[in-house]
Amino acid sequence: MKKLVLTLAVSSSIFGFAQSKQDSIKFKNISDKIMTEGQAYDWLYDLTKNIGHRLSGSLANEKAVKWAEQKLKEAGADKVWLERVMVPNWYRGDESLHIKSADGTWKNIKMLSLGNSEGTKGKDLIGEILVVNSLEEFAKTPTEKVKGKIVLFNNEFPQEHIKTMHAYSQAGKVRRVAATEVAKKGGKAVIIRSLSSAYDDVPHTGAMKYEDGIEKIPAIAIGPKSAMELSELAKTQQISAKINSNCSMKGVVRSYNVIGEITGKESKNVIVVGGHLDSWDVGEGAHDDGAGIVQSIEVLKTFKNLNIPNRNTIRVVCFANEENGVKGGTAYAKSIAEKGEKNIFAIESDTGGFSPRGFGLDMSDDKKEIIKSWKTLFLPYGVYDFTETYAGTDITPMKSTGTDLAGLVPDSQRYFDIHHTEEDTFEKVNRRELLLGATVMTQLVYMVDQYWK
Amino acid sequence: MKKLVLTLAVSSSIFGFAQSKQDSIKFKNISDKIMTEGQAYDWLYDLTKNIGHRLSGSLANEKAVKWAEQKLKEAGADKVWLERVMVPNWYRGDESLHIKSADGTWKNIKMLSLGNSEGTKGKDLIGEILVVNSLEEFAKTPTEKVKGKIVLFNNEFPQEHIKTMHAYSQAGKVRRVAATEVAKKGGKAVIIRSLSSAYDDVPHTGAMKYEDGIEKIPAIAIGPKSAMELSELAKTQQISAKINSNCSMKGVVRSYNVIGEITGKESKNVIVVGGHLDSWDVGEGAHDDGAGIVQSIEVLKTFKNLNIPNRNTIRVVCFANEENGVKGGTAYAKSIAEKGEKNIFAIESDTGGFSPRGFGLDMSDDKKEIIKSWKTLFLPYGVYDFTETYAGTDITPMKSTGTDLAGLVPDSQRYFDIHHTEEDTFEKVNRRELLLGATVMTQLVYMVDQYWK
Repeated sequence: MKKLVLTLAVSSSIFGFAQSKQDSIKFKNISDKIMTEGQAYDWLYDLTKNIGHRLSGSLANEKAVKWAEQKLKEAGADKVWLERVMVPNWYRGDESLHIKSADGTWKNIKMLSLGNSEGTKGKDLIGEILVVNSLEEFAKTPTEKVKGKIVLFNNEFPQEHIKTMHAYSQAGKVRRVAATEVAKKGGKAVIIRSLSSAYDDVPHTGAMKYEDGIEKIPAIAIGPKSAMELSELAKTQQISAKINSNCSMKGVVRSYNVIGEITGKESKNVIVVGGHLDSWDVGEGAHDDGAGIVQSIEVLKTFKNLNIPNRNTIRVVCFANEENGVKGGTAYAKSIAEKGEKNIFAIESDTGGFSPRGFGLDMSDDKKEIIKSWKTLFLPYGVYDFTETYAGTDITPMKSTGTDLAGLVPDSQRYFDIHHTEEDTFEKVNRRELLLGATVMTQLVYMVDQYWK
Repeated sequence: MKKLVLTLAVSSSIFGFAQSKQDSIKFKNISDKIMTEGQAYDWLYDLTKNIGHRLSGSLANEKAVKWAEQKLKEAGADKVWLERVMVPNWYRGDESLHIKSADGTWKNIKMLSLGNSEGTKGKDLIGEILVVNSLEEFAKTPTEKVKGKIVLFNNEFPQEHIKTMHAYSQAGKVRRVAATEVAKKGGKAVIIRSLSSAYDDVPHTGAMKYEDGIEKIPAIAIGPKSAMELSELAKTQQISAKINSNCSMKGVVRSYNVIGEITGKESKNVIVVGGHLDSWDVGEGAHDDGAGIVQSIEVLKTFKNLNIPNRNTIRVVCFANEENGVKGGTAYAKSIAEKGEKNIFAIESDTGGFSPRGFGLDMSDDKKEIIKSWKTLFLPYGVYDFTETYAGTDITPMKSTGTDLAGLVPDSQRYFDIHHTEEDTFEKVNRRELLLGATVMTQLVYMVDQYWK
């Protein structure tokens, strides 16, 4: 009882007790509406099954743009428009990896070229495999051992992190830089063990980057099991790999940020809620980031459905091209800066449609304290964690315009099992988890709309 | 910063700062060990794929008893034994439900008889359907409208609850009592809409109970979609159902609680950690409650692996017959009472192998405060919720012996999608979520072993 009194005292010092009570009722209204009648799950079915994956530059991505425009209109936006963005047009094509067994035959291994990688132009690239376990080990490997080799990074996913996002951040560098590092020492190609929290044979793609002036060698990913098996095999015998791939960067093409809003009743200031519309070119982009898109539309629809009188403009942005360029987020930040439009707050959902646990807060400590003072309101909805400081890739460029940023922090245990894979499908999304995420996003937007300075 | 100081002050007032630091290191050791090397997931694969579902009285249940005995030995228990328990032997057999369509043909509908229900003895039971939406509505329905009918309860799952366990508790009565209530008004059989948080066509079984002296009419469950469709159909036409089933209670048979322990180094007092070994006779009993069994064995194994010097005896109990009788839990409580053995604490995991969020505490308020004073230790592992007051069905009988009870509270969003169905399979369990549950159980047992009075 003592604790309860203390907590209420903290809230009431900022809002007053009656206000806090009223907000708590509004939180329940929002939750009841979304948990019983929310449509995010049905929209996600439509997006994933009728359009599917939707890499920047693909025909599916164009369809997704039209789909999002239509859905925002149906959800009740006062105004819907497209913001033109030039995006990279990377294309995968056919690809394969074979490993030469001890008996001289070639065995097929499941693989995916890393996004943005150049391929072998349809020719067989054959080379002996050199196995290393980390970038650190590779840095110590002499150039003469690397020259002419295909380097396999058997980098383990650091399972000891409780929040897998931290594990991914720690382990992720190898995907981005391995090709350049290997090329610098004269290697022919690079194979990385996928950044996966599962121990299976599913390859995960994801963006890599070449350094200017360094040869663009092919970079592919294989499943953790294959990586481990090859690594074991390489201890007792010399093994060779044959890569054949057709991926390449085909220049830039036109795409769009899809934007819809409900006009503010009292202010021209804007609160952004969003996710990214593009996905990798495998699976269905369900958790990454169909979930964030449909949750964001649900926020807008709930304001309309419950007739919540929003003071500020509430704007959904379905960002283009998060996966391999962040051109959508960059363009949006540039456009508001040019217009001098005040975007006071932005929240992104881009770490999966799982059960929410908190919000990452990228803003001043004073502003963080305001959100933390709302924690007793959020607790009944499973939201208790305000310690993360990352908000979202698409909204990060807005920081330079002074926007305060937040990111939905869902439970992270399952995300990196399926992230950037064939398995990121609608079936892996749970209806209640998805809707609960939309619920707490709506609640946060409601509070920010009421109280943000 | 103020909050941090306050929190540490609370911990240090009970343990001292240095002790708290030491416990925090132990928590990390436990977590690292289990998250990187834990075997619970592999054990669960073995249990679910090589034995499968294991209803009390079944051959599979006998196999599971031997399996658990072996696994406890392998995990390093100092002593493993079987405690004899007489359990009900309910048998399902073939069963079907057909609905007469408007054109006079019979359409097959997916169904499951409720556990403990009597069937139609292989004969067709045909009757007109009367639809009601709740027990309350049925109570107001005149006897003459019910007589000779098959009553369909189209009871909706209350999705507005954030914790689905609360929704299940609220909605669950209909499954247990509907047959008796319908029989009292002369109905022939009862069909209930499954207690499911998913809107699909998967029937969920689960225990029902007949009231003494009232006719034992058949009770079956169908999926939410079928229930809704039939309910809609019944608004415009008279529909009939044909039930044919062979289930019945075949008396009692011998089974066992499987028990393994590491002997206390300083005390004969016992800390129990457990789940139930039986499951319903569909699916694989993976979340319910294979998860609780393998997590409990992981707790024991981790104490051995890390060589934690347990003061009290740490005892794993794999309880018999939770699903349709609770005979295992009852027998265990009786046996410790008879021996006068002091079981100071018991923790059960029986709400799925999902990401943990807290512990339900069934003990005095003073004791609860001790556990709550540990909350900063648990927070990095996602455990923050100590508000629930239910611990577990199998350990509840121990309350009469003075044992303090706790239950693992995992995220509840997905559990009732698959609970008691064909879909409760190994594939629905995530490795990291399962291991994280085992981690926080081990951490709690560690703390209780150190500090419980």
